[in-house]
Amino acid sequence: MSILVVGSVAFDSIKSLSGSVEKELGGAATYFGLSASYFTDVKVVAVVGEDFGPEQEAVFKKRNIDLKGLQRSSGKTFHWGGEYGENLNEAKTNFTHLNVFESFKPELPAEYRQTPYLFLANIDPRLQAEVRRQMNGAKLVGGDTMNYWITGHRENLLQTLKVIDVLLINDTEAKMLGGESNLPRAAKRVLAMGPKALVIKHGEYGATIFFREGAFGIGRHPFRAPTLPLDEVKDPTGAGDSFAGGFMGYLASQNAINRETLKRAMFYGGVMGSFAVERFGTRRLQELTRDEIDERFQIFRELTHLE
Amino acid sequence: MSILVVGSVAFDSIKSLSGSVEKELGGAATYFGLSASYFTDVKVVAVVGEDFGPEQEAVFKKRNIDLKGLQRSSGKTFHWGGEYGENLNEAKTNFTHLNVFESFKPELPAEYRQTPYLFLANIDPRLQAEVRRQMNGAKLVGGDTMNYWITGHRENLLQTLKVIDVLLINDTEAKMLGGESNLPRAAKRVLAMGPKALVIKHGEYGATIFFREGAFGIGRHPFRAPTLPLDEVKDPTGAGDSFAGGFMGYLASQNAINRETLKRAMFYGGVMGSFAVERFGTRRLQELTRDEIDERFQIFRELTHLE
Repeated sequence: MSILVVGSVAFDSIKSLSGSVEKELGGAATYFGLSASYFTDVKVVAVVGEDFGPEQEAVFKKRNIDLKGLQRSSGKTFHWGGEYGENLNEAKTNFTHLNVFESFKPELPAEYRQTPYLFLANIDPRLQAEVRRQMNGAKLVGGDTMNYWITGHRENLLQTLKVIDVLLINDTEAKMLGGESNLPRAAKRVLAMGPKALVIKHGEYGATIFFREGAFGIGRHPFRAPTLPLDEVKDPTGAGDSFAGGFMGYLASQNAINRETLKRAMFYGGVMGSFAVERFGTRRLQELTRDEIDERFQIFRELTHLE
Repeated sequence: MSILVVGSVAFDSIKSLSGSVEKELGGAATYFGLSASYFTDVKVVAVVGEDFGPEQEAVFKKRNIDLKGLQRSSGKTFHWGGEYGENLNEAKTNFTHLNVFESFKPELPAEYRQTPYLFLANIDPRLQAEVRRQMNGAKLVGGDTMNYWITGHRENLLQTLKVIDVLLINDTEAKMLGGESNLPRAAKRVLAMGPKALVIKHGEYGATIFFREGAFGIGRHPFRAPTLPLDEVKDPTGAGDSFAGGFMGYLASQNAINRETLKRAMFYGGVMGSFAVERFGTRRLQELTRDEIDERFQIFRELTHLE
């Protein structure tokens, strides 16, 4: 089944200990869409400016991603500049030029509204809620958010959390949102806000999914998937969105939400995140094959599997 | 097969967000010994002072731990005072009274020297090496160390690492010892210093074992075991030593070192660490049953197991 993602398409200028790139294609919807495209059909709702040209468009087209929902505005595309030191979990932002993204109002083409799987990438929770309302029939809704919304727009975020099935955030965000330094307790508090499941991403240590009692008709025992210990992380930008793309994309491809598919989705999320960070920007995600993905899935499985 | 541990037996005065205790029985050899005692016979080589009485001795006796190697000196037992805030991975040390531990010279009773499994807990690497020399026939030698020895006594530590089979340390220590912020690269450098395997403990995220190429006749693919997401960690003191006790104790009980036993040992390490932190000091480790341990082993397995 197909999946719709609403979020940013952007240019990133990134420095890390492994090098640097200028105006590299990025943005949450881009990472998510490319990642999910290896599992299912993807539609993107986003906004770009006049500097988004055929070269960028070709990246989506090559992966058969539907761009009918891509708005083109006069002005420039969202452009973020940041850098990473030894701590790859934290980017230092050098600049954020929102440009056309500042007045982004997601408009869903009529034929998009019946898409069964929806991912609300990290944007203003009011926009997330607005898109969610237009997609009443969605079978599964995933969402992301960040510190900025958690601390500064909490009430709006709490409204949106009521209509999200699976929230995917990192440790710091989960602790901040739950108001708890203990992770399982923070998870319990976040699940009480609405989501049926909460995926907490631990960077190089993998990710854990926590379930609300009775959600999806399965037990509430958490499940943890690893990440691959990588000798070099060139650029961690987009790892979380790539995780979400693998997670949601795999679920959409199976069209069955049960403990076993959710567990495998956690592994595929980790797999896609591990590919994303191997090269700058979305380069690695542009050129994968499904065989490479399944091969790495097996490596992930070996990493934690007891006979 | 039996196991010998050399390290500290101490009193700990601990504060955490869950409460506080005064002069609670602790020390690396105590945590390790109690933990390993659920798997195999344990001998302890350590030093205590006159304030170590029948009450403390009974804790070891109840677990059938052999104390013939416990030296009794005039003076007081090693006493550490520390506290934990929200970050449970870092203790703030309030005081360290080494007392009789300051002049600890491990003396092995003659009948101890043929013990097949040996664990060198965190003490001066020169003492670790000295014990190792007296135990030439050991089948498997595990060891621990800490920042103090890594930065201040590096040369001595490097000598000791040559005669340790499995080193068990945490992320920060591994990065410091390897001189690398990337964990797999740091692991590679530590393994080049001598150990056949390196267990890196990630606190609440579990632990990973890295292997030197060809070590134990198995492939060099790492293996990761989880920890249990716990609603409350009362006291993280001794979690690492309890992990080591479960890891080494299980291996000693199997008397077979291959990929499958090493993987299970990683899980049992995590299981014992997760029990240790549930109550202050060694209280939880004193009263376990093997059934409880195997039940939790199954929970750990469920936490990461894909069909």
